[in-house]
Amino acid sequence: MQTVEQTRDWLLSRARVPAATEAVELLAAAGRVLAQDLVATLDVPPCDNSAMDGYAVRAADATAALPVSQRIPAGSVPPPLLAASAARIFTGAPVPPLADAVVMQEQAEVQPDGSVRFTAPVGAGQNIRRRGEDIASGQTVLACGQRLQDADLGLAASIGVASVQVYRQLSVAVFFTGDELVEPGTPAGAGKIYNSNRYWLVPALRALGCQVLDLGIIPDTLAATRQALRDAAAQADVVMTCGGVSVGEEDHVKAAVEAEGELQLWKIAIKPGKPLASGRVGEADFIGLPGNPVSGYVTFAVLVRDFLRARMGEVVPAWQPLYHLPAAFDWRKPDTRREEYLRVRVAQQGGQLVLQRYPNQGSGVLTSCAWADALVRLQPGQLVQPGDMLPVYTL
Amino acid sequence: MQTVEQTRDWLLSRARVPAATEAVELLAAAGRVLAQDLVATLDVPPCDNSAMDGYAVRAADATAALPVSQRIPAGSVPPPLLAASAARIFTGAPVPPLADAVVMQEQAEVQPDGSVRFTAPVGAGQNIRRRGEDIASGQTVLACGQRLQDADLGLAASIGVASVQVYRQLSVAVFFTGDELVEPGTPAGAGKIYNSNRYWLVPALRALGCQVLDLGIIPDTLAATRQALRDAAAQADVVMTCGGVSVGEEDHVKAAVEAEGELQLWKIAIKPGKPLASGRVGEADFIGLPGNPVSGYVTFAVLVRDFLRARMGEVVPAWQPLYHLPAAFDWRKPDTRREEYLRVRVAQQGGQLVLQRYPNQGSGVLTSCAWADALVRLQPGQLVQPGDMLPVYTL
Repeated sequence: MQTVEQTRDWLLSRARVPAATEAVELLAAAGRVLAQDLVATLDVPPCDNSAMDGYAVRAADATAALPVSQRIPAGSVPPPLLAASAARIFTGAPVPPLADAVVMQEQAEVQPDGSVRFTAPVGAGQNIRRRGEDIASGQTVLACGQRLQDADLGLAASIGVASVQVYRQLSVAVFFTGDELVEPGTPAGAGKIYNSNRYWLVPALRALGCQVLDLGIIPDTLAATRQALRDAAAQADVVMTCGGVSVGEEDHVKAAVEAEGELQLWKIAIKPGKPLASGRVGEADFIGLPGNPVSGYVTFAVLVRDFLRARMGEVVPAWQPLYHLPAAFDWRKPDTRREEYLRVRVAQQGGQLVLQRYPNQGSGVLTSCAWADALVRLQPGQLVQPGDMLPVYTL
Repeated sequence: MQTVEQTRDWLLSRARVPAATEAVELLAAAGRVLAQDLVATLDVPPCDNSAMDGYAVRAADATAALPVSQRIPAGSVPPPLLAASAARIFTGAPVPPLADAVVMQEQAEVQPDGSVRFTAPVGAGQNIRRRGEDIASGQTVLACGQRLQDADLGLAASIGVASVQVYRQLSVAVFFTGDELVEPGTPAGAGKIYNSNRYWLVPALRALGCQVLDLGIIPDTLAATRQALRDAAAQADVVMTCGGVSVGEEDHVKAAVEAEGELQLWKIAIKPGKPLASGRVGEADFIGLPGNPVSGYVTFAVLVRDFLRARMGEVVPAWQPLYHLPAAFDWRKPDTRREEYLRVRVAQQGGQLVLQRYPNQGSGVLTSCAWADALVRLQPGQLVQPGDMLPVYTL
């Protein structure tokens, strides 16, 4: 058996960054992976501007009532401030040359003659947002390999960028093996079960931004599996299967991949999980998930998702817990040889955040994955007592 | 000023659940909100089945070598196990009647005569997944008001459901006000700034599953703003604006909403933020975000996102921190009257997870939102020393 870390490292080391990139308009770029450094060609904000609705003044003049010499809405270009005067100014409007402070209107009293008097001391620089304080021209605002989140797109817009160069979308072909499988919506005869893997895997791939080619259930024969692999590899960057990678003689995926390309078959020290296949069919990468839905789901979260992210060009951060929280459960029969990934929820208990585990952590219980927020990672042989601080990972 | 909690409660109490629902195929239902309880009409698994590739036996017989009397691939329907025999069985295959244990093949040795001998003690019940251990017929598998995640769809598939009843998508019309705004891709003249709000807000709404009607920048006049409100309200369930809700006289959104519907304008004890408008235009709900991008972004995360989730029919969980982590920063000039929401990142420091804050927490610095993973919530007047445990909220 090899460790989870060894497997992650192997997969990540083989994740080729896509060769092709494309220009995409900002509003279509959410969730895409940036294929360029984005460098600002201007300052944000472009000039000193008011953080408040109020009055722009020279602080030194502001001890006396001041006549209002101009009015500066946002978007206008003010002339210099006349000596010993105030300018009515609005949030975001440029501070006029020679002014050095803004007084918020709640601290200004308009006098009967139209002048303003200030009710609090005025300090030079107050309530002014400085040119370039958010972004300075020449600064790298977003880096190649970042997956673009909503705030990133706002940031790109703020430097005037209307489209960005992103990596081409990854196409992933999936199929499912097992003569016991039937699709939901059709009756399941005796001995049959519904194909649940398709219904979590396809949305999970789409959520990553993959274009999914869904080939459905393939008959459990070597010939059909080889044909499906060839079809899939001809059309997609990555081919993924669920099932057919364990040691049993009914599993044809292993033999089919070996016949059509190259296969690495691993026993990984992970529970739920253990078998995972990787390799190549034609020009496509191959990933074979275990057919058991819980094993497949956890293996995808722990090992495969970050491989796909890297394969999309994303710079994947170091694998570390999100945080630690105390267990509100015990775990008395640890696996002695494999890491265990328990499906847990964060809950309030006595005013404190704690981890609850789904009662039945069996590998046949997909309910545990739907119920859970996160995974707890246990070392081989690790017992858990209530109160133990446990590392929490993304499910 | 009113508190963040008061504002959240007010908004959530007015979030009407959509009246219309629709049937959607499972693979199109990711991220949609379930409008029915989903009740299992079958057991999962449908019969006792093998958790391993190996041999099904009566445990009491397994002390001696046993002839192999049948072979049971997954998907088949086996006859009862012959007395004093073993059945070759594969993962997921039904355990034959009269068998009460499965021995994994790693603990079985095939003898020259084809019989099998077991190398470890065999206990009744071992390696059998029981009928209904994941889901029992009659059990509510998913509840009305749940937002469907990938594992939920796998679960629905596992009980044979091919389509689900979900709430109709929420349509949200957005427009942006401010004569200082120009769209990225066009030159920004003196005094102008780029409209960044559009580029984080539209993706954030789409990520929630809203259908967005994007009306762009509206001229900063009362007449144009009233017209835009009427157009938006005629087409959408919710109308959202950025800008025009502070107290300054250049702000027309306030007056326009009052003329076309009803307005609640709040000063909320939140920083960044403060102004937020809510109300009604025609049959549509109205939300007016502050025009400052950082204020708008944080206000959306803290106050508006959960209103929209509830408005989509989702049962919104209690508002609570995700977890607590120690600060690796100090904060010496707290706002004395408003809660502050600092933009922070989780980082490894000396083998421990800590919170870092973006150095410039100014409300003009959108970079802080793009840089951050999460928000730290500080009470009015709360000072922070390094090492203080701080509550972390979703950004």
